[in-house]
Amino acid sequence: MDMAGTRIYLDYNATAPLSEAARLAMIEALDAANPSSVHAEGRAARQIIENARREVAGLVNGQPAHVVFTSGATEAAAMLLSPEWTMGRAPLKFSRAYVSAADHPCILSGGRFRKEAVEKVPVRPDGVVDLDALARALAAHDGAEGLPLVATHVANNETGVIQPIAEIGSIVKQAGGIAVFDAVQAAGRIQLDITAGYADFFIISSHKIGGPKGVGAIIGASDLLMPRPLVNGGGQEKGHRGGTENVAAIAGFGAAARMAASSVNGMGIVQEKRRRIEEAIRSILPDAEIYGEGSPRLPNTVFFSIPGMKAETAQIAFDLAGIALSAGSACSSGKVGPSHVLQAMGFGENAGALRVSIGLQTTEAEIAAFAQALEKITARRKSAVAAA
Amino acid sequence: MDMAGTRIYLDYNATAPLSEAARLAMIEALDAANPSSVHAEGRAARQIIENARREVAGLVNGQPAHVVFTSGATEAAAMLLSPEWTMGRAPLKFSRAYVSAADHPCILSGGRFRKEAVEKVPVRPDGVVDLDALARALAAHDGAEGLPLVATHVANNETGVIQPIAEIGSIVKQAGGIAVFDAVQAAGRIQLDITAGYADFFIISSHKIGGPKGVGAIIGASDLLMPRPLVNGGGQEKGHRGGTENVAAIAGFGAAARMAASSVNGMGIVQEKRRRIEEAIRSILPDAEIYGEGSPRLPNTVFFSIPGMKAETAQIAFDLAGIALSAGSACSSGKVGPSHVLQAMGFGENAGALRVSIGLQTTEAEIAAFAQALEKITARRKSAVAAA
Repeated sequence: MDMAGTRIYLDYNATAPLSEAARLAMIEALDAANPSSVHAEGRAARQIIENARREVAGLVNGQPAHVVFTSGATEAAAMLLSPEWTMGRAPLKFSRAYVSAADHPCILSGGRFRKEAVEKVPVRPDGVVDLDALARALAAHDGAEGLPLVATHVANNETGVIQPIAEIGSIVKQAGGIAVFDAVQAAGRIQLDITAGYADFFIISSHKIGGPKGVGAIIGASDLLMPRPLVNGGGQEKGHRGGTENVAAIAGFGAAARMAASSVNGMGIVQEKRRRIEEAIRSILPDAEIYGEGSPRLPNTVFFSIPGMKAETAQIAFDLAGIALSAGSACSSGKVGPSHVLQAMGFGENAGALRVSIGLQTTEAEIAAFAQALEKITARRKSAVAAA
Repeated sequence: MDMAGTRIYLDYNATAPLSEAARLAMIEALDAANPSSVHAEGRAARQIIENARREVAGLVNGQPAHVVFTSGATEAAAMLLSPEWTMGRAPLKFSRAYVSAADHPCILSGGRFRKEAVEKVPVRPDGVVDLDALARALAAHDGAEGLPLVATHVANNETGVIQPIAEIGSIVKQAGGIAVFDAVQAAGRIQLDITAGYADFFIISSHKIGGPKGVGAIIGASDLLMPRPLVNGGGQEKGHRGGTENVAAIAGFGAAARMAASSVNGMGIVQEKRRRIEEAIRSILPDAEIYGEGSPRLPNTVFFSIPGMKAETAQIAFDLAGIALSAGSACSSGKVGPSHVLQAMGFGENAGALRVSIGLQTTEAEIAAFAQALEKITARRKSAVAAA
């Protein structure tokens, strides 16, 4: 994000700007040795990691010993979505993964489960997971083959819709399964508590909370029940994840987690900013649809469509006007297409929308510039409609 | 590595000091957006990655299109050591992995192969893979179940012994298998050429060549034959490796690869430094064993044992004297034990040794300090022996 010019960045859900605390922590840790080395340099590197582990655990009220660092949330999902687990040293089998149809592709893909063993639970038009459908699916689960594993997002990356995680957790527990929550977009924006009992694991990504890219974590309610490692190597992360630790990124992640834990308290301010963005949208486009509007949503996200204008076209127009926002999520390189999230919500196969996602740093001036650009871009649409 | 004090770092094979070029490239890229975002910020991030891809490919005379970035060499090994591959869009099965007994644990573990499908090929006392044993193992391979996959290191992380990769490649080709070479310790120290025909894939780690931790790559001779992805997500790396790219680390890796490609030419200087280290060892300890001495070795590595003194004890003594070096490799957190490499070379179950690994930046003064410390530490041994 080159903020030196007049560019305006409203795409926090794709990646949040690096916080100064994270930047400093990273730069300080760039010269770290190999944390597995037993010499003084190695022990200093180890200390950096263990300090960050405490900060990251704290974000969800967890224990440092239950944090496993990964290269990001996508790897974390691939690690957790595994049919093969261990309970202590005994093997344990999960026969089926239940995911929500509006999940991120890394969850939707089912990780290490065979395609046939991954079941998509529908979401309702308001973006919330259909709890009855989840309960029915789990009731039909054949326990003889293995346990059920349920994985879904806490908050949607496109719409910002927040799932009823306590209810989901309770349904999963009743079915004797485990609940994995992708908290990538929720962390630092809503309160998360691993001791509350609904979640067996949270997945967190550093770069969505103001930390560097290239690092994420799984945080468990315990470390008794663990997936078979995805990446085997030199025994790092207590054998759960091999490979020399990304010390600098972990240091930055720790600093970002500390900031994020307190930034939850500032989300009222962010929500007020979002309210003004939505006000502008409604005043300029009374016919615009704001997706998931009636549901609990992240305070920083608005996902809306401009009737009569393709989301990609609008996104490009905003980009030319100096405003970075998304048409859907920023996942597949260069791939801009219909949103599988809107499709899951029943808005048809070709539905697309613009995502504005902001943070504490988003300014009044930026919101005003967004409103002005929206007015101009949609005026073109009106004249195009008039000319047609 | 805090070089501010009087500490001396002789553990380049555990992690090499971050080069200034890599540091600058990283710091410049810390604010990068999500490379999958289609706005200007996203496209700028994408450009950083593609520039680095060219540099990393260049290190082994490869094509940028055949580079897949991973979170490190360990993940790269887990990705390539897979029974399931695709040739274009058709599935292709590998039934058995052949690794060398002196490989790094990430190769030895066999990645995604079942334990029973991983066969260890012995190494000779000089540290070189037993080529006859490899040929025999491949001759006995049952092709009906799938192809053979051979994975081994180019240069050993402990001894520095260089494998006859052209011969290994030729044996593998004759058996109709593919050859994966872990070039983590070799890159930047010896010339590697993916167009020479012996290698189907190289595995490279950034932090061993002066780049940051948390990034590595596989570099293929082509991208026709590829393993099933280990990490699925938003379609990054042409679908071969999901997850938001670690832009800053990739930028640093690119800069380090550019430096490493030219530093190969400076290895004569490093070898001369190593010669003086070995001279000191021999003059102080005429009875010391230098492992793999008679074999082609990396110019920067010496692995030796002090008769009558445990390697761990000596390592701690060096550490207290301000010198960071290793007893074996720096893999498992806190685990210092016998070397599986020496065991594979036939030196017994409890063999351990000290590793001194250096680089272009290693100074005369550091070598003198090492010699002085060795003298002191082993004098203690002599008096201990005398007192006993």
